[in-house]
Amino acid sequence: MAARGRFITFEGTEGVGKSTQMKNAAATLESLGIDCLVTREPGGTPMAENIRELLLAPREESVHEMTELLLMFAARAQHLHTHILPALDAGKWVLCDRFTDATFAYQGGGRGVSKERISVLETLVQGDVRPDHVILLDAPVETGMARAKKRGELDRFEQEDVDFFQRIRESYLERATAAPGQYHIVNAALPLEQVSASVAALLTALAKAPQLVG
Amino acid sequence: MAARGRFITFEGTEGVGKSTQMKNAAATLESLGIDCLVTREPGGTPMAENIRELLLAPREESVHEMTELLLMFAARAQHLHTHILPALDAGKWVLCDRFTDATFAYQGGGRGVSKERISVLETLVQGDVRPDHVILLDAPVETGMARAKKRGELDRFEQEDVDFFQRIRESYLERATAAPGQYHIVNAALPLEQVSASVAALLTALAKAPQLVG
Repeated sequence: MAARGRFITFEGTEGVGKSTQMKNAAATLESLGIDCLVTREPGGTPMAENIRELLLAPREESVHEMTELLLMFAARAQHLHTHILPALDAGKWVLCDRFTDATFAYQGGGRGVSKERISVLETLVQGDVRPDHVILLDAPVETGMARAKKRGELDRFEQEDVDFFQRIRESYLERATAAPGQYHIVNAALPLEQVSASVAALLTALAKAPQLVG
Repeated sequence: MAARGRFITFEGTEGVGKSTQMKNAAATLESLGIDCLVTREPGGTPMAENIRELLLAPREESVHEMTELLLMFAARAQHLHTHILPALDAGKWVLCDRFTDATFAYQGGGRGVSKERISVLETLVQGDVRPDHVILLDAPVETGMARAKKRGELDRFEQEDVDFFQRIRESYLERATAAPGQYHIVNAALPLEQVSASVAALLTALAKAPQLVG
């Protein structure tokens, strides 16, 4: 039986370069001979992608904060149990664009939902599954928002104001600072080559480090 | 300020005649001069109806039981907080086709999700809001399934087997028997005129009874 793969998530506010760095990370792992699955939240399976569409679509109806929170975890339950866990069990490393840290940051820090409510759902859906490593791409909110706007039409989250994303950035940094062994903060405001070099070096170090027994 | 309206839900397995009896109940209340809102779960608002479509659509992907449970409560959060509670606060009676008893019956009894998990979500989403009265239309499973099949294409739930609906019926009866003041079991296997007469008499009695202070 293969050793269990590592579960690595990429987090950050809009426009910090997660997609680019996930491709970079996957290429780094491939060069090291490590088989990996690249996926994203909300989404990652056909049903979870349908839930993503519901969450991101701009709409006239005001979406209750508990509706949004439960939809995030509904997509996560489907993704985790039918896609991520089977891949980890098969020995693959999983690189995931956002996971529960994003819920604490966006619905918690951004919308003001209590951490206790989010923790209840985290335990209900995930049991004791947590990412082995979280790579937080951190940059000033204005830098990222300018990049996100260049991509075209803004989704329901991207339409929020600077203060919303400022609270999200602070939530991310607070969680990362509290658990430095699990979180790795990368300065995403630096030139792309430097960010990519940092992420590649980090993944290489993780690949060589002995796996913690979960 | 208007007195708070009553929250009345209609429950039962497939094909027991909920839609017909809800129309009957609304007509009874109207004849008594009571303003009411008729709605349904999952659904009741545009976003919650979108979630309903996701839940009911037959699909190749196997839907994890926790995904289904969270989608039900996501739709419920939206429906309850943006539609049902404002109507009750405005003094309307709310007649709702299915509510959380259906989750205990379908996801609990039917799928085997633990009652404790469902209760955690019930409290998270509803606080202490519960239906004032639950009208359980009860009939042998085979009778209802034969009626449901006549309606045309079966949704993801209606495609389940007799045992699934048998467990649902038992769950409903168990909950109803445990709280006879809140639950009213109506024999839906009787001829339609008799069922309608029972429901009309029940609604009339509820309208004349003093409202319990919640």
